Amino acid sequence: MELFYSRDIDGGICRLDKDESGHCAKVLRHRCGDEIAVIDGCGTLYRCRITCDNPKGVEAMVLSSEESWGGHPYSLHLAVCPTKNNDRYEWFAEKACEVGVDMISPIIGEHSERRIFKTARLEKILVSAAKQSLKAAVPVVNEPVSVKEFIRGQEGQALKMIAYCFEDESVPRRSIKEVLEGYEGTEILVMIGPEGDFSKEEAQMALEAGFIPVHLGASRLRTETAAVTAAEAAYFRYM
Amino acid sequence: MELFYSRDIDGGICRLDKDESGHCAKVLRHRCGDEIAVIDGCGTLYRCRITCDNPKGVEAMVLSSEESWGGHPYSLHLAVCPTKNNDRYEWFAEKACEVGVDMISPIIGEHSERRIFKTARLEKILVSAAKQSLKAAVPVVNEPVSVKEFIRGQEGQALKMIAYCFEDESVPRRSIKEVLEGYEGTEILVMIGPEGDFSKEEAQMALEAGFIPVHLGASRLRTETAAVTAAEAAYFRYM
Repeated sequence: MELFYSRDIDGGICRLDKDESGHCAKVLRHRCGDEIAVIDGCGTLYRCRITCDNPKGVEAMVLSSEESWGGHPYSLHLAVCPTKNNDRYEWFAEKACEVGVDMISPIIGEHSERRIFKTARLEKILVSAAKQSLKAAVPVVNEPVSVKEFIRGQEGQALKMIAYCFEDESVPRRSIKEVLEGYEGTEILVMIGPEGDFSKEEAQMALEAGFIPVHLGASRLRTETAAVTAAEAAYFRYM
Repeated sequence: MELFYSRDIDGGICRLDKDESGHCAKVLRHRCGDEIAVIDGCGTLYRCRITCDNPKGVEAMVLSSEESWGGHPYSLHLAVCPTKNNDRYEWFAEKACEVGVDMISPIIGEHSERRIFKTARLEKILVSAAKQSLKAAVPVVNEPVSVKEFIRGQEGQALKMIAYCFEDESVPRRSIKEVLEGYEGTEILVMIGPEGDFSKEEAQMALEAGFIPVHLGASRLRTETAAVTAAEAAYFRYM
């Protein structure tokens, strides 16, 4: 099933941007009268009939729409420190999107080696991942903030967890599986640290802000693998 | 913690190959008398003292050993069709190793676009992944065989599952989570198809051979994501 993406759907008219129009009218040779499926990135699938097949600006008439198409029964926000190698972060984002994630926050920790992060490229990757995995919602990517700034901003009702090694074992941790199984709600937030883990101060601040310290099992996982494993934990909890 | 890898540990003497020796004696500048930790790839960790620091051939005396170091309480065999893009297969292998997998069988399906597969490079990737995730066992990679040949060879006692779309819905499928939760044993085999899924004939043959048809949840996952998700399902089952 071929999906197109448009943020410009209004009054029963759907317009595709230059890239999507070229793909639709030039590559796939769609013509006026053809039916296409378009996601708005916010969870709705639109079935449309092409009314203008200009490869620089395709227009289509909305025939029907379906809300929360390809959605999942929970809301997952993953706050993950950038990895040294950016490919690994992009990989995590693609995989988390396929499995199911609603929001991604790049957070810069005191031990983060990479402190600059560009969100634009990640958004492109998430749009293709959403199309590829048949989801009408594209995960939101927030602008990067420091871990401490991020923690201060979390006032919501979500189940907040921090995956942290606490190597001194000073803080007892439960497995993310156990914590999720005991949770009746559907709003989940998981914070994943950098290669060098969170600083003691960051972890302490998270605990004081109500984050539950969790571990992701016995395996020692890279940052991006830990982030995907957190997405899988939520996926299996509501499966 | 820095780990070295050696297949040549015998009579209390551990020898590192050229690459590992160079890394040990040249890059990390280890000298005679230094203690190093070496995995044998079969599950045992050896603590050794260097007796020869030749960067072309380091030798060390075994001080102590620890069996099934960094192991997991189950045995997982993933039989996965090669992906069109080889990077995606290598990525799956690395991640499955971090999470926990014991054996990987590349299987060529009737719908597989890629029919040639080189195992040598994958073994290198798995050795680094095992070292990186602190596991003394390196997953075994089998030589590629056809899906049908593979199915014929599975006579063991493992819980055998096939992740297949059965788009005609002719075959009722349970979730891999549900099947794993109902399983008392620890030997697991999951077969994952190519981009074009298994052929009807391959799927039918698997069912007749006792493979349980499973789904991996509501999300539509790429081959490599499905394979990692299967590894995560086992990981969480025994967490």
